[in-house]
Amino acid sequence: MQEFVTIGTNVTRTHVRDKAIGAAIYTDDIRLPGMLHGRLLRSPYAHARILHIDTTKAKALPGVKGVITSEDIPRIKFGNWRLFPDTQDEYVLAVDKVRFIGDEVAAVVAIDRDTAEEALSLIKVEYEELPASFDIDTSIREGAPVIHEAFPNNISIHRKVSHGDVEKAFAESDYVREDVFHVHAISGAYLEPCASVAQCDYSGKITLWTSTQVPYIVQCLLATTLGMRENDVRVIKPHVGGGFGAKMELRKWDFCAAFMAKKLGKPVKFTLSREEEFETGRRRHPMRIYSKIGFTKDGMLTAKDLQIYLDGGAYNAMGPTATFLCGNYGLMLYRYKSYRFHGQHVYTNKPPASAIRGFGSPQSTFCTETQMNMAAEELGIDPLDLRLRNAVHEGDVIPELSKIGSCGFAECLEKVAEASQFRKKRKNPKKGRGIGIGCYSFISGGVFNWFNTQYPFSAAEVRVFADGTAHLLTMASDIGQGSDTVLPQILAEELGLKMEDIRVTSADTAMTPQADLGSWGSRVTLMAGNAVIDAAKKIKEKLFGAVTAHFNLNVIHDLECKNGKVYSKGRPDKGLTFGEAVALAQKFQRGEPLVERGSYTPRGKGLVTPAFSFGAQVAEVEVDKDTGLVEVKKMYTAHDCGTVLHPQSVEGQLEGSIQMSLGYALSEQFVLEGGKTLSTTFLDYKMPSAMDMPESESICVDTYEVEGPLGAKEAGEGLVSPTAPAIADAVYDATGYRCYDLPITPDKVLKGKTKL
Amino acid sequence: MQEFVTIGTNVTRTHVRDKAIGAAIYTDDIRLPGMLHGRLLRSPYAHARILHIDTTKAKALPGVKGVITSEDIPRIKFGNWRLFPDTQDEYVLAVDKVRFIGDEVAAVVAIDRDTAEEALSLIKVEYEELPASFDIDTSIREGAPVIHEAFPNNISIHRKVSHGDVEKAFAESDYVREDVFHVHAISGAYLEPCASVAQCDYSGKITLWTSTQVPYIVQCLLATTLGMRENDVRVIKPHVGGGFGAKMELRKWDFCAAFMAKKLGKPVKFTLSREEEFETGRRRHPMRIYSKIGFTKDGMLTAKDLQIYLDGGAYNAMGPTATFLCGNYGLMLYRYKSYRFHGQHVYTNKPPASAIRGFGSPQSTFCTETQMNMAAEELGIDPLDLRLRNAVHEGDVIPELSKIGSCGFAECLEKVAEASQFRKKRKNPKKGRGIGIGCYSFISGGVFNWFNTQYPFSAAEVRVFADGTAHLLTMASDIGQGSDTVLPQILAEELGLKMEDIRVTSADTAMTPQADLGSWGSRVTLMAGNAVIDAAKKIKEKLFGAVTAHFNLNVIHDLECKNGKVYSKGRPDKGLTFGEAVALAQKFQRGEPLVERGSYTPRGKGLVTPAFSFGAQVAEVEVDKDTGLVEVKKMYTAHDCGTVLHPQSVEGQLEGSIQMSLGYALSEQFVLEGGKTLSTTFLDYKMPSAMDMPESESICVDTYEVEGPLGAKEAGEGLVSPTAPAIADAVYDATGYRCYDLPITPDKVLKGKTKL
Repeated sequence: MQEFVTIGTNVTRTHVRDKAIGAAIYTDDIRLPGMLHGRLLRSPYAHARILHIDTTKAKALPGVKGVITSEDIPRIKFGNWRLFPDTQDEYVLAVDKVRFIGDEVAAVVAIDRDTAEEALSLIKVEYEELPASFDIDTSIREGAPVIHEAFPNNISIHRKVSHGDVEKAFAESDYVREDVFHVHAISGAYLEPCASVAQCDYSGKITLWTSTQVPYIVQCLLATTLGMRENDVRVIKPHVGGGFGAKMELRKWDFCAAFMAKKLGKPVKFTLSREEEFETGRRRHPMRIYSKIGFTKDGMLTAKDLQIYLDGGAYNAMGPTATFLCGNYGLMLYRYKSYRFHGQHVYTNKPPASAIRGFGSPQSTFCTETQMNMAAEELGIDPLDLRLRNAVHEGDVIPELSKIGSCGFAECLEKVAEASQFRKKRKNPKKGRGIGIGCYSFISGGVFNWFNTQYPFSAAEVRVFADGTAHLLTMASDIGQGSDTVLPQILAEELGLKMEDIRVTSADTAMTPQADLGSWGSRVTLMAGNAVIDAAKKIKEKLFGAVTAHFNLNVIHDLECKNGKVYSKGRPDKGLTFGEAVALAQKFQRGEPLVERGSYTPRGKGLVTPAFSFGAQVAEVEVDKDTGLVEVKKMYTAHDCGTVLHPQSVEGQLEGSIQMSLGYALSEQFVLEGGKTLSTTFLDYKMPSAMDMPESESICVDTYEVEGPLGAKEAGEGLVSPTAPAIADAVYDATGYRCYDLPITPDKVLKGKTKL
Repeated sequence: MQEFVTIGTNVTRTHVRDKAIGAAIYTDDIRLPGMLHGRLLRSPYAHARILHIDTTKAKALPGVKGVITSEDIPRIKFGNWRLFPDTQDEYVLAVDKVRFIGDEVAAVVAIDRDTAEEALSLIKVEYEELPASFDIDTSIREGAPVIHEAFPNNISIHRKVSHGDVEKAFAESDYVREDVFHVHAISGAYLEPCASVAQCDYSGKITLWTSTQVPYIVQCLLATTLGMRENDVRVIKPHVGGGFGAKMELRKWDFCAAFMAKKLGKPVKFTLSREEEFETGRRRHPMRIYSKIGFTKDGMLTAKDLQIYLDGGAYNAMGPTATFLCGNYGLMLYRYKSYRFHGQHVYTNKPPASAIRGFGSPQSTFCTETQMNMAAEELGIDPLDLRLRNAVHEGDVIPELSKIGSCGFAECLEKVAEASQFRKKRKNPKKGRGIGIGCYSFISGGVFNWFNTQYPFSAAEVRVFADGTAHLLTMASDIGQGSDTVLPQILAEELGLKMEDIRVTSADTAMTPQADLGSWGSRVTLMAGNAVIDAAKKIKEKLFGAVTAHFNLNVIHDLECKNGKVYSKGRPDKGLTFGEAVALAQKFQRGEPLVERGSYTPRGKGLVTPAFSFGAQVAEVEVDKDTGLVEVKKMYTAHDCGTVLHPQSVEGQLEGSIQMSLGYALSEQFVLEGGKTLSTTFLDYKMPSAMDMPESESICVDTYEVEGPLGAKEAGEGLVSPTAPAIADAVYDATGYRCYDLPITPDKVLKGKTKL
């Protein structure tokens, strides 16, 4: 194993001070001279034809600078899946029809927000209401309302995966079970509502500041929708107060701000309200999951047949990826001798679902893990043992996916069982208490190039200076997850520098190197991290050359950068300070500064991910026999994220995952009535607070991922998946109530309990 | 000659729209959350010992956030001439002594400017006044007040140049004359007063926005004075409202803003008032010039002995360069068979002189050209002919300087004479009217590395994209002279793109490529222009490779980028659009974007300049016989700036030069009384306005400078030099008054006239 200096330590996170004292600038903090303010008019109908829009009165309101509808702008459909244009189903402003309550119909820009708001009420839209569908069943049945004319049966995406002969395997199985699960929508509930500020310069070029996870994607799609060239648009990501997947698309206010800035010649800002966020924001896909699994009598998995309907809401958004991924996640943890998956993405007249942390995994894994627990009970095998018998291991090849590199799954199972005394507690139940288990495997970024980028997936530029400092430029986006800490930390390790020696500039599409696909799918640390290492290696070659020449070393000497020095490993006295080595290398190139570019694109890794992470989680709950209220007492986690680069950040991701999944399992849900969202504030939408958090104990098992930077892989998203099945299993252990449809609300517990 | 597409046309200047509509952001326009405001306490004495400073009351004033004196900051001397640390004679805040009225003693930072101003009045400084010197004579005589202890005779710099045996040449000359000239100080009179805004980030790194010509120099010297590392300081140049040489140093408010931002944890702004600018701002060196020249009887120059005392004021500032340059300019226009120069830089207790447009040339050239006119008269040779006989030509080697490349001087003389009908008008004088001539040669940037940079002198990064656009990044500073137009124009020509295809990012020391020494000495077009071409050539190699591969061309094909296409010159059908070629080249490097860096450092060009420009100017004046008032009726100019890249900009530079030199010749002067500046507003300081401008006619002679980018060389500064001698000569022609001391005020004319 490599010995690290900076890696593995809790270097101060880059932005904590600025965020703590209020100095960090978020998009809504930006104020430009002459800036105007925009608001969006949204549909009050779930499904309706637009007959006529009259903006006369709105335009006449003093202070109003412009009103646009789809008549005024290019009618260009957009969407993240550029590789398959058929999936791009959104216009910026509704054309002919609205498809959910909140669908954007018009935009107003005025001298202030209140005036813009008032102008919205003066726009008269004549609608003809159409029959609407609010669930999968309604959408897929014969004669259903057609939401998009191009998809008359309301199914916009099919995804099929298959290996082995599933039917034959079931026929030969000793034990087969078939279940249906329903999982629900939750919000990413980021603290910073979406916002954009756009400015148009002398030459018509646009600069957009926006709260996004994907500056490069926004750049490209904004250019497309404006009918401009990609590089005539510059996207800058200020500080972002969370995204959780829901900020990974071009959003309509991005377009409206840019279009109006260009049209009016003044900067324009749009900031969403919390109510708009809850009513219309991207959310986790509700799914209906049919799953059939087979085992031999000694508990070896034989087959899995998984059918999932995704409730996509009114538009595809990131639905195609969700459809792919939930099929992949169904396959990842265990050795399935045969597997069949059919995913179908269904339109309904609800706000569009999209990517939310975990993205396909929380849903798919809830099914997988619940079925494992049920099968264990019926087969009479300890749930840990059943998992250990079927667990994937290093070197396993997953058909349709790829070969698994590092894999600490089995070790996670043993470690979490030991820490939680799972076996003992399960065998000795206490009244009102239960213990349950859930596991996960997750990706470290995706391979499939749905955005059809022509660039490497991640890139980094490293500049080093004779004063002993370095500058790291990357388009990777810190949205709170900490890439502006971990990427320079990796560079510090590689170059033997301290964190304070490194300046980091991130996520400005005009300034940072092309390109980075954004912060999603737990891709940043592995991909941008590898790009940083690639650049650092090139820098080191030059520094090593300078030192070799300076000391007239034999060329076979191994050199290293460590503790601010560059020297021969075998002859540590033959060395220069980092700054001296840079100065010398610079002289060798007659003054030219040392600047190197690195990049990473996964290759030879199949179509899903370059690396797999794993983990197992045990939940202990207490259930109130009278109210059915579930209280999670403690979570035990063992996970395999490869090298732990920054322990505090890994711990933070774990805590955040538990908080998010606690809400998913027990309390968070959108209450809709006829397509209208009723839970529009944090009072109605029940997100767990810090006070609701259970005790937590965690173990990182020791693995090294060869494909990852310095051995690291995913540590941010996978952990949102095991929590809900583990809690559900613990509730079953305590009450006999087996949850098939999340969330586990008190009424369901009371109704379903068989003991307690 | 090369055929150009974009070069030579008046493409729209990059910033005109933003400047016209008020959208351009200058330093003082920057407002940051929580920003504080600073003011400087200045010395009321020209020379005094500081006995004690009491800041107690100032600190106690509500709203005051900090007060500093030299006690509170690192005592580090600074100055631009890093190569010779002895020349660095300034502290940020006065230590022990003040040396001129306005010398910075303390700085106050408060919640607003008024509070800071009020606090200044509460600082009690106890001074012991010392004898002061306000002129060269007083400073250099025995027993003079010692202004800097390290230079007891008040002469801080000597510069000697010599070739040939001057004494012998004079002895053998047929005609020798010896004169003494006095030239005075003028202000750069930029419209934007100096301003700085500093911010300190989480890690203690400083970002400074400042109105400067030299972001890189400010970065380095600010880091030094703060005791920080160069790259922990980032300097950004917003729009700059003129510099004219006076903004090419680290200034004290830059330091105070940065130091206080770091100390207080809040952004800090300093903006100077117009009064401060006039009282203390950098100004053109007053000089006393002794010049002896010899000729043969047929008008061939034999020798020149030039002695110049520069009145540097209280500190060296850019005085060392001025001392060097005025000796070089004394040597540049004509073939001096022998030459001797001794320059001495003298301290006085006045505001420091420094670089102002022309920088040594207006002073030295006033002497050279006036003496040529006087000699012509006495030798009975037409002043044009006398010049033609002695003029330098292409290929001449100037001892101590370098070989002259392109040279259109003789042609300029012929052309300007023809256009102005100089000979005819001179022979047929009209009462009250006069015609006169002056010439110049100027540098295209300097070679001598006084700043001791470790980087190339100029650099450029060019990124090209598959959408047919390019991004040019350069640290070259547009201060109004137009480098943000001309540099992309050069790139457009090289890559066959249009201006609107190019994004330009300039002058941010953290983002644009290291380094550029700044905008001074007419260096930018030649040096940064060459860096752009260097980068463009590397880009083209890749595009040419892609096209050669795509069409399977024989490798000897010549290719070119023109009109948005990349193709074989011999087979224009074998070509791709620029964007297609980029996309293909990018595929060849598996997605890596095409990014290339270019640079320029003059080599094999001696120690002065890579290229010489030339020009001749004729002035026609009318002198009022009763008031002595001189009105310039028309200026005729013929100049050689190599290829004219942007005609409008060249014309603009010419007009600006005439305006500036009109003031120098006739009206601008600082009135001082006991070291105190009395002319502190534009009402007292008589700068010519647009209404005072004479008619102007100009010719650019056709040359091509091999060392310049696309044949170009200096076009911005040289023209400030011939105007004053030409006007003086015309005044002599009209009145018989020969000016030995600028400016030519009515009283001097009335007193000195021999006719009219």
